[in-house]
Amino acid sequence: MKPSSAFCIRLICFATWQGAALFIASAQSTSTRTIPARPLPVPTTVSSQLQTVIAPAWQGSSSPVVRTTEQWKVFIQQVNQPQVQEAELLKQRFQVSVKEDTIAGVHVYRVSPPVVPEENRHRLLLHIHGGAYVLFGGEAAIPEAILMAHYARMEVISIDYRMPPDHPFPAALDDTIAVWREILRTYTPRDVGLFGTSAGGGLTLATVIKMKELSLPLPGALMAGTPWSDLTKTGDSYYTNALIDNVLGTEEGSLDACAKLYAGSHDLTDPLLSPVNGDLSGFPPTVLLTGTRDLFLSNTVRVHQKLLHAGVPADLLVFEGESHAQYLIAFDAPESAIAFQEVTQFFERNLER
Amino acid sequence: MKPSSAFCIRLICFATWQGAALFIASAQSTSTRTIPARPLPVPTTVSSQLQTVIAPAWQGSSSPVVRTTEQWKVFIQQVNQPQVQEAELLKQRFQVSVKEDTIAGVHVYRVSPPVVPEENRHRLLLHIHGGAYVLFGGEAAIPEAILMAHYARMEVISIDYRMPPDHPFPAALDDTIAVWREILRTYTPRDVGLFGTSAGGGLTLATVIKMKELSLPLPGALMAGTPWSDLTKTGDSYYTNALIDNVLGTEEGSLDACAKLYAGSHDLTDPLLSPVNGDLSGFPPTVLLTGTRDLFLSNTVRVHQKLLHAGVPADLLVFEGESHAQYLIAFDAPESAIAFQEVTQFFERNLER
Repeated sequence: MKPSSAFCIRLICFATWQGAALFIASAQSTSTRTIPARPLPVPTTVSSQLQTVIAPAWQGSSSPVVRTTEQWKVFIQQVNQPQVQEAELLKQRFQVSVKEDTIAGVHVYRVSPPVVPEENRHRLLLHIHGGAYVLFGGEAAIPEAILMAHYARMEVISIDYRMPPDHPFPAALDDTIAVWREILRTYTPRDVGLFGTSAGGGLTLATVIKMKELSLPLPGALMAGTPWSDLTKTGDSYYTNALIDNVLGTEEGSLDACAKLYAGSHDLTDPLLSPVNGDLSGFPPTVLLTGTRDLFLSNTVRVHQKLLHAGVPADLLVFEGESHAQYLIAFDAPESAIAFQEVTQFFERNLER
Repeated sequence: MKPSSAFCIRLICFATWQGAALFIASAQSTSTRTIPARPLPVPTTVSSQLQTVIAPAWQGSSSPVVRTTEQWKVFIQQVNQPQVQEAELLKQRFQVSVKEDTIAGVHVYRVSPPVVPEENRHRLLLHIHGGAYVLFGGEAAIPEAILMAHYARMEVISIDYRMPPDHPFPAALDDTIAVWREILRTYTPRDVGLFGTSAGGGLTLATVIKMKELSLPLPGALMAGTPWSDLTKTGDSYYTNALIDNVLGTEEGSLDACAKLYAGSHDLTDPLLSPVNGDLSGFPPTVLLTGTRDLFLSNTVRVHQKLLHAGVPADLLVFEGESHAQYLIAFDAPESAIAFQEVTQFFERNLER
C-alpha cells in the first residue's frame, strides 16, 4: 500500500473541466504536491455560536516538545484547570449530580441526570475521556460525561484512568478493562454503551479489541468521537486539514509528544495503541463523529470503512465546519445539541430494550 | 447564520496544546484567516490504483469561463468523447448489454447485467448521470450505470436528460419527472432505486423534491454521490478542499460557468437547483458518498445532516483520500468496488422485498 517511487499514470479522467487536455498523462518521480496559501473564511452554513469557535486561527506550535517529568506535570495541571471550571459550569447548567467512586480500584465519576426515564434505568453509558492520553485526569474528565448524561437521560460512569508521565501504556487500558469486568457483575453487557472522544475514542476502540482478546462479553453499542485511531502521522487528513483544524493544528508538536509519552517503549502501530490497525470484526454497532476540518477526519473514516468491511453496523456523522471535537468545545451551539441527540438516538436504537 | 462583523470571543477551549495560554480571547474584525502553503503527499492508506488517481495536481483553471453557444458545444463534444470510450471499455469488461430506448419522449439507455438473480427481477435502478448539468449527454452518460448494473446485478435505466446550452433548467428536471411518471406504470415505486453522482446526485435530490411537490409516489431508496447540492459557493469544503481536490479544483472557473449556464434566469438558491435548501422530510432512505479531499464534502454532509434532522434514514460514506467522484474515476481501484458494494447493500436493504 506504499506509493511506488515512480508513477506511470494513464488516468482515464473525465473531469478535466478546462478544455481539450482530456487525458492526463504524466510520469512523476515524487508524489508530494504543494497546496498554495489560501484564504479560509468562517462558514456561513453554521450557527453563530459555532462560528465563534471556528473563527480563530490555531494558537499552537508545530515545534518539537521536550519536557521533563516535572514540566509535564505542571503543563498538565495548567491545561486541566479550565476543564474543571467547565465541568462545574455544566454541572450547574444541567443539574446533574456527580459522585466520586472507586470501581475495581479505579477512580471513577458517577454522573446522574436529574431524571432517568423508566426505559433507561437498566442502561449505563461508560465514558472514557479524551486528552491525548495525558490530559484531563480528575474532574477535567467529566464535561463530555455530563453532556451525554443530560442528552441521553442515562446514568454515566466516567473512568478516571491512570495516565503518563507516571503511568504510561498499558495502564489506561488495564483500568478500562478492570472497570468493565466489574460492570459485568451488575449490568447486562448489551445494556451498556461505551463512548469517548479523541484519545477517549481511540481507547474505546482499543478497549473493545482487548475485550475480544480476553473473550469478555462486549458492550451493546459504541460511540467513538473523532478517535485518535492512528498514533503515527498516517492518514490523509493529517495533511489536508493541517493548520485548517484550529484545535489540533498539526500532528507535530504536542500531539506527537503525547503519543510518545503514552506509548513509552511500545510500538505506536500496535492495535492497542492505534486501533485502526486492529481486527474490528464482531464489534458492537458503532457511531463515529468528525468534522470537515478535523485533523482526525481520516482517523474517523478509516475506522468507519473498516467496521463496514467487517460487517459491523456503523454510522458516520460529519459536522460542517468543525475541527477536532468541536461538538464538545462549542457545547452552546445548536450543532452540539444535534450531535448528542443523534448519538442518543443511536444508543436508544442499539442498546438492548 | 451570517458571521457577525466583529466577533467577541471567550472560548472555553480545552485544547490549546502548547502551554498556559488556556483561554483564547480575541476580538476579530474579519473572519477570514489565511492557510499557508503546505506539502500534500499521496496517502499511504489507499490502494496503489487509487494513489495513481490521487497523485496528480489539478490541471484546471480558476479563471472565469466565457463561451459562445457554439464554443460550449465544441467544448462539450471534446469532454464527452473519452467518456464514450470509457463506456465502451466498461461494457466489454462487465459484459453488460446496453440498449437505447425512449421513455415518455426522453432518450434513455437500458443497461442490463449478464445475470439478474431472481430476487432482483422486479427491481430497477434509475440513473441520473453527472457532468455539471452540461456534460456527459449521450453514451457518455452510462459508465456509472454500467458499474452499478454490474455490482448490484439489477436492471439500470440511465436517463439521457436534455441539457444546456439548448435546454437549460428546468428541462432536465422535466425529463426525469416524465420518465418517473412512466416508470410508475410498470414498477412498484418502492422497488425502484434512484441514483446519481455530482450533478446527477443533485438532480436525484431535486427530482424527489419535485415528486413531493407533485404528490407522486417516491422511490424506495436513493443514492446521492457527492451531490452538487448547492450551486452557489456556499459550504465549508468549497474553501477547505479548494485546490486539494484534483478533479474539481475550485468553484470558480468551469463549475461556476456550468451552474449559471444550467440555471439560466433562475435563482441558483432555488431548492430545485440547490436541493440542500429544500424540504427533505419524507425522503426515502438515502446513502451519500464523498471523500476526504472532495470539494463537495460539505455539499454531501450538509444534505446528510438535513436528512437525519428530518427523520430520514441516511447513511454517509467518506472515502479516504478521494477527491470528487473518484470512486467512479478510479473504477479499477478496490476502493471503487467497495463503494459500489456498499451502495448495493444499501439498495438491497431498503428496496421492497
